[in-house]
Amino acid sequence: MNLPRRALAEFLGTALLVAIVVGSGIMAQTLSPGNIGLQLLENSTATVFGLGVLIAVLGPISGAHFNPVVSLADWWHGRRDASGLPPKNVAIYIVAQVAGGIGGSILANAMFAKPAVSWATTDRSAPHLWIGEIVATAGLIVVIFCLVRAGRAAYAPVVVASYIGAAYWFTSSTSFANPAVTIGRIFSDSFAGIAPSSVPGFLAAQLVGGIVGLLLVAGLMGQTPATQQPP
Amino acid sequence: MNLPRRALAEFLGTALLVAIVVGSGIMAQTLSPGNIGLQLLENSTATVFGLGVLIAVLGPISGAHFNPVVSLADWWHGRRDASGLPPKNVAIYIVAQVAGGIGGSILANAMFAKPAVSWATTDRSAPHLWIGEIVATAGLIVVIFCLVRAGRAAYAPVVVASYIGAAYWFTSSTSFANPAVTIGRIFSDSFAGIAPSSVPGFLAAQLVGGIVGLLLVAGLMGQTPATQQPP
Amino acid sequence: MNLPRRALAEFLGTALLVAIVVGSGIMAQTLSPGNIGLQLLENSTATVFGLGVLIAVLGPISGAHFNPVVSLADWWHGRRDASGLPPKNVAIYIVAQVAGGIGGSILANAMFAKPAVSWATTDRSAPHLWIGEIVATAGLIVVIFCLVRAGRAAYAPVVVASYIGAAYWFTSSTSFANPAVTIGRIFSDSFAGIAPSSVPGFLAAQLVGGIVGLLLVAGLMGQTPATQQPP
Amino acid sequence: MNLPRRALAEFLGTALLVAIVVGSGIMAQTLSPGNIGLQLLENSTATVFGLGVLIAVLGPISGAHFNPVVSLADWWHGRRDASGLPPKNVAIYIVAQVAGGIGGSILANAMFAKPAVSWATTDRSAPHLWIGEIVATAGLIVVIFCLVRAGRAAYAPVVVASYIGAAYWFTSSTSFANPAVTIGRIFSDSFAGIAPSSVPGFLAAQLVGGIVGLLLVAGLMGQTPATQQPP
Repeated sequence: MNLPRRALAEFLGTALLVAIVVGSGIMAQTLSPGNIGLQLLENSTATVFGLGVLIAVLGPISGAHFNPVVSLADWWHGRRDASGLPPKNVAIYIVAQVAGGIGGSILANAMFAKPAVSWATTDRSAPHLWIGEIVATAGLIVVIFCLVRAGRAAYAPVVVASYIGAAYWFTSSTSFANPAVTIGRIFSDSFAGIAPSSVPGFLAAQLVGGIVGLLLVAGLMGQTPATQQPP
Repeated sequence: MNLPRRALAEFLGTALLVAIVVGSGIMAQTLSPGNIGLQLLENSTATVFGLGVLIAVLGPISGAHFNPVVSLADWWHGRRDASGLPPKNVAIYIVAQVAGGIGGSILANAMFAKPAVSWATTDRSAPHLWIGEIVATAGLIVVIFCLVRAGRAAYAPVVVASYIGAAYWFTSSTSFANPAVTIGRIFSDSFAGIAPSSVPGFLAAQLVGGIVGLLLVAGLMGQTPATQQPP
Repeated sequence: MNLPRRALAEFLGTALLVAIVVGSGIMAQTLSPGNIGLQLLENSTATVFGLGVLIAVLGPISGAHFNPVVSLADWWHGRRDASGLPPKNVAIYIVAQVAGGIGGSILANAMFAKPAVSWATTDRSAPHLWIGEIVATAGLIVVIFCLVRAGRAAYAPVVVASYIGAAYWFTSSTSFANPAVTIGRIFSDSFAGIAPSSVPGFLAAQLVGGIVGLLLVAGLMGQTPATQQPP
Repeated sequence: MNLPRRALAEFLGTALLVAIVVGSGIMAQTLSPGNIGLQLLENSTATVFGLGVLIAVLGPISGAHFNPVVSLADWWHGRRDASGLPPKNVAIYIVAQVAGGIGGSILANAMFAKPAVSWATTDRSAPHLWIGEIVATAGLIVVIFCLVRAGRAAYAPVVVASYIGAAYWFTSSTSFANPAVTIGRIFSDSFAGIAPSSVPGFLAAQLVGGIVGLLLVAGLMGQTPATQQPP
């Protein structure tokens, strides 16, 4: 696949992922007022379905990262045998992902007749939430790269979506686990939003989680062999 | 497969799809009064299961379109290499689908001891709902034709059903995304109904969404090669 | 597989199916008092998961019918080319299924500290419920035999379980669709129970549904070829 | 795979399984106060997703037992043809699993800003709950070893996770079915906790269930052939 199409897939995939998270959050908040547990169940169910679809549909084009931590980890994990993304492509992917994340929030706002941009006000700054994000992101990296290393990347749509379905509930942060999505969620003051002041802590925790995840992959699967074929 | 059997499959599939949407809507409204969020969760869960089954079971017979926009897009997308539906078959499919959509509503009414036909009164006319329908239908076309182009049409039962499961929640219109289903939902004044006066706006938005979807498919996958094999 | 093992699989599978339906019904009733919609969602979700597992695990042994209508339809559908169950085996299967259905109710009662047998008192006698059962059973037969005819029987665990997940909600009867399960559900006076006086109507509707289903299969797929290989 | 990596996979898998069960239990309790049915639905949904992911990701490394009863049954079931775990590995697996179970509870407590350890106070001592655990564990063993014997072990992530999704609801004990998880759930006084005094009864019932399960496998599939290949 050529690079512009791959960048389009990353832009579109991240935009739709954020539109799904934010849009279903607005719908849940509107239809289940006062019942936050049910709202999160509606929000997480929609996200599981939507994320699985996006990976199944766009995976053959761009690999369906939709996530700067995944793109960075892909470069790092495959640096020895050149099976990963080259650094230039990592940069292009990240730009497309962040732009998509912001665009997705604006699209969700438009679909629900809200101002194109409203700054989120949900404060998510607390050490236990950062622990949650570290666990969520480390788990995501373990899931993706253990699948790849075991030759099971074809299962990624179901497995990664299911992982997020669990992580929404078992991590205290509801598992953002994605810097582009985190930035996108600044732009809608609704159920899934995050106040700008809480973003740096989340981004830092996600990067730490990415590193922890790569260490666990190495512990579980051993170092990448230099002769490994790209998946 | 011969054409009468394919038309029967399109009729039966669309009828059962509408019976599932309308019937589970009536059940949800009856069992969860006053809790619209839970009603939509029950309605969308039943639809995901049912739609996936219909595609898995009837796909080998007719392709399991159940949707005039999909049949039109199939003709357009495959017009260069004659891999799509010929125009005559498109017309037969659409007649079968619309008849099925109406029949499905009547069947749901009969199963729940309601008058065979009651005109829906739910007003769904608003620009932000039309944006929702454009997004919902464009997404559906991207999902189907990117799968087909990537040789992954066998995953359609799970992926298309999951897409609708997400779109129920992340689009403001709850994702009708289907003219035959939209027309069918006129005929039952219940949870899933749509007032006749709101139908033209939805149909127009669905057609626009279909075109947007085909443009996105071309952007993501390139033009159809003239030598492509039909899937 | 030898016949005693197949009969054991049919007995055990039907028993566990009824234990799942009745047991999760009791759990739902206990934990979500007054919220019938949520009870049915809990009940149907547990049944989807459990039924899929039973078909996946016991299918290789007995074919995982767990349902006299399915065993009868299997004999009828395969009578021309001897690919179906022989009549003697149909009789053995049905005995095992009905015994299993009763045993499953007793097991559920034991797990929830209820009397071993309590006669259900839920009246389910009404013409619109019988229409629901006809639709539910016809749909089940269409699903199973269209899959078999299309060489897709390996998908049965997911597709049949999903079908029941939809039919719980879109049919007015909540889709018993199974005489052995219907008889079993007499033996526990709880959420999933059915009063003995309502059983004959349900059984008759299920037989009618089975015949309608076989007619639809013939319409969709044509008559069974005499040379067809058993699946 | 070498033994240290396998032990790490068993430790990590059991830890994350308990973190999922306990963490999503705390989240459910916090967001859906007073609605125990909805709490259990949230808890069971997260567990289904998470358990399936853990088996898919770690199965190729260690077999993804995460459960002393499964490791013991694996040794017993494969003792004739040496296809099972050797006794030394069983011991190492069990130590890793129990340590993981405890670690997972502590991790969940940390993510939700609770004391690292708080002794659970939920009393779960009653004969009908022990019947539930026997059924739950016997069912788990039947599921796993019938899949293995039928050459369908590749379906284990979906089938085993689905089984637990049903067993959460149809057994009165909510299906612990795992001594390592049972011990881990002592360490967090929250929704999924179990008082230490209730643990011996649960462990005994799980061992009985394991034996019942192996007997049923032998009845359904026959004795293990001495020449069978390891799966």
